[in-house]
Amino acid sequence: MSTDSKYQLLANELEEAIHSGRLAIGSRLASVRKVMEQRSLSLATVVAAYRTLEERGLIEARAKSGYFVIGKSAGAKSSAIKSPGASVATPSTSPVNANCPDLELFPRQRLHRLTASVVRRHQYLPTTYAHGLGNTKLRGEIARRSADFGSFIRAEELIVTNGATEALSLALRAVARPGDSIAVETPANPLFLALLAELHIEVVEIPALSAQGLSLAALEQALLDHPNLRACLLVPNFHHPTGALMPVATKRALLALAERAKLALIEDDVYGDLQHEGPRPPPLKAFDSNGSVIYVNSYSKTIAPGMQVGWIAAGRWHAQIEASKQSVAVATAELPQLVLYEFLNRGSHVPHLRRMRQLLRESTQRVHDGLARALPKECQWVVPAGGYFLWLELPTGISTAQLLEQPALAPLGISSGRHCSVRGDFDHCLRINTSLLDQSAIAPFAVALERALAG
Amino acid sequence: MSTDSKYQLLANELEEAIHSGRLAIGSRLASVRKVMEQRSLSLATVVAAYRTLEERGLIEARAKSGYFVIGKSAGAKSSAIKSPGASVATPSTSPVNANCPDLELFPRQRLHRLTASVVRRHQYLPTTYAHGLGNTKLRGEIARRSADFGSFIRAEELIVTNGATEALSLALRAVARPGDSIAVETPANPLFLALLAELHIEVVEIPALSAQGLSLAALEQALLDHPNLRACLLVPNFHHPTGALMPVATKRALLALAERAKLALIEDDVYGDLQHEGPRPPPLKAFDSNGSVIYVNSYSKTIAPGMQVGWIAAGRWHAQIEASKQSVAVATAELPQLVLYEFLNRGSHVPHLRRMRQLLRESTQRVHDGLARALPKECQWVVPAGGYFLWLELPTGISTAQLLEQPALAPLGISSGRHCSVRGDFDHCLRINTSLLDQSAIAPFAVALERALAG
Repeated sequence: MSTDSKYQLLANELEEAIHSGRLAIGSRLASVRKVMEQRSLSLATVVAAYRTLEERGLIEARAKSGYFVIGKSAGAKSSAIKSPGASVATPSTSPVNANCPDLELFPRQRLHRLTASVVRRHQYLPTTYAHGLGNTKLRGEIARRSADFGSFIRAEELIVTNGATEALSLALRAVARPGDSIAVETPANPLFLALLAELHIEVVEIPALSAQGLSLAALEQALLDHPNLRACLLVPNFHHPTGALMPVATKRALLALAERAKLALIEDDVYGDLQHEGPRPPPLKAFDSNGSVIYVNSYSKTIAPGMQVGWIAAGRWHAQIEASKQSVAVATAELPQLVLYEFLNRGSHVPHLRRMRQLLRESTQRVHDGLARALPKECQWVVPAGGYFLWLELPTGISTAQLLEQPALAPLGISSGRHCSVRGDFDHCLRINTSLLDQSAIAPFAVALERALAG
Repeated sequence: MSTDSKYQLLANELEEAIHSGRLAIGSRLASVRKVMEQRSLSLATVVAAYRTLEERGLIEARAKSGYFVIGKSAGAKSSAIKSPGASVATPSTSPVNANCPDLELFPRQRLHRLTASVVRRHQYLPTTYAHGLGNTKLRGEIARRSADFGSFIRAEELIVTNGATEALSLALRAVARPGDSIAVETPANPLFLALLAELHIEVVEIPALSAQGLSLAALEQALLDHPNLRACLLVPNFHHPTGALMPVATKRALLALAERAKLALIEDDVYGDLQHEGPRPPPLKAFDSNGSVIYVNSYSKTIAPGMQVGWIAAGRWHAQIEASKQSVAVATAELPQLVLYEFLNRGSHVPHLRRMRQLLRESTQRVHDGLARALPKECQWVVPAGGYFLWLELPTGISTAQLLEQPALAPLGISSGRHCSVRGDFDHCLRINTSLLDQSAIAPFAVALERALAG
């Protein structure tokens, strides 16, 4: 093997590690000398590999301290501009997304093979407009799977979207005009709050219980206080960020309330397939007999984060959202839909999801054990029954946004709760992505936290 | 060769013809007997091929009249649901889009090969989040090309979007809030009007001249009449639907006015690369020294309609639009960006665009000749210097929306001007996509039109 290909192999291997998150942004690469010894490579080979990664904008050399992972930053931009003739196509993918499970959990090789096969068979994809409502075969698969958990959504009721974000945006625009109000369980997914701000819709925060989610009494009060309350946007199954699972009785009661009050329910079910044990919990949509629920889901958290394929079953608002998607929204690309169709049609999701659930259960348990051993007694949390978020409450008065400014206190997977409320109510809370948090980071984090609490 | 593969070859060939638009929706396929004779195939082979296309939802059999192309319709949906286990992945692509040039003009095979090659080299694409602002290498290429026509947009100023539609939506949301006004040249691209309605922004129609575009005097008047006028949305190069090209002197004067009045200019330049002769016209952005122009473009009309890759150079609004794109918009998929990067980096766009311009010039000339020969004298039009739209004015009083309800009067490529104004002002006009209109359709169209004018 030539030196040429050796350095490229090493560079590609490290690039994969960075893109998968195994080598996190900010971490230091092993020294050139160490890699030479470990792998019996020449100085030139290792240096060439590291320089290649530098050119790709993935790492940077810092004087006297070595090479550090920077992901895609200003460095990458300027190198792309300086050497536009370079032939290596570097994707500008961000290695870690704190809202997503560890990328190692996804069926990368299988999806890659399916993608190559679909591309081979469909040569007109790059030059043909995609169908606005989505691929009919994929819609058929989604419809069939929805029956598994009692929703019985028909393919004609489904519109494929560019991920859950577009689906939520379509749903919100269908039910509310600028100046109207939407109720949101808080703490909330910060994306929801950003989306509502962008659409000039007022947020009415409904306190949610950390184990069971939305409080019906609080929602009833909000209906009294806000006559222009058009809908409630919620995550009944493994809520982000609390991990709460709404009991079936509450789901039924909520639907009855929504029907009486003519309130739309926008249900984000992207974590619904990630129960840690037992059967998949039914969504609200499973109990919806008159089209009050606009159901939103995607494959980004469960199968393919890079494909951005979501869908919406919009109940009473179907015709309106269909028109909106066809006129002004972006048609969803055909290729990823065909790949997901093949993946589902061959049943590949069954073993994949089984394995993913088990790994999420294990990582959640590990984080819980680590927290229980190390954290001060004032800290509280509930172990979630699904998904990969754990909500940690510190004593009020603590500002986690400030705390996390110290690098030792900000391991990968932990972020402040401040942005989970419009009013910043949850600055004393932490959102933990249990699939990203390394167990070895818990003990030093706990020590630093204890010191901060004492100070 | 087995009968099996023979029928599949025939079915695939016909499917390609349907997707490319060569076999238009509504047209009748050759009879089974005729195909048997022409190609020396057995009855079973031809019938099997036609049934395969029926199963794929592309054609339908009608009693006693043969097989007709239906594209993707209700038939396709229900067949996908009835036979969910079928292994052929049928894309739900629509064969013809009246806003797009003839799909035959695009470099399909080249893009297909590049797509296969990019997929081979990047196995992590399906499972990695894409970077919100776009691939850095592609941005470098776009920046370099912008210098060719004097814009000198830097890569850091560019954000890659899901086609021009998303770019326009980001631009409009950055400059206007619900209830504000935006000036639009009319007749206008109906998509613009739909987008503004969706965003609850008021439309102020500025009459445009069919050869030179926007009237500055009318824009000045609109500034006086509408204090909440935030921006002017316009297509200075080969306007859709009039084909008008704004002279450089008007571009400079418009910019000076916008700077004085602190008015944002949103420039849609998607047809700018499609001049029929001579050098590419400069966009407004080329004369913009203080960031007043939000420049929008895409590759959907020039290179790859199926990829939906657009971009925005947002001038003074860059930071705001960057934040919006990263928080609530849909990240642009990485794969098509890498394919377009390779296409541009290898210089493949140069011969491709040269050929495309020539074909558009020829088809426009053919349509003009046909109209000049056949149409009643009351009809008026201007031969455009670029793009593929021609705007035809009939005597006022004629309703083209009604006219086009008769199939004989609605050949592929002709649509009513009614939706080019909020007020329906242009119902007496026709928008002709010269690359889609078959020359042989002009004479019968003219005859039917003359009869309608007389009656």
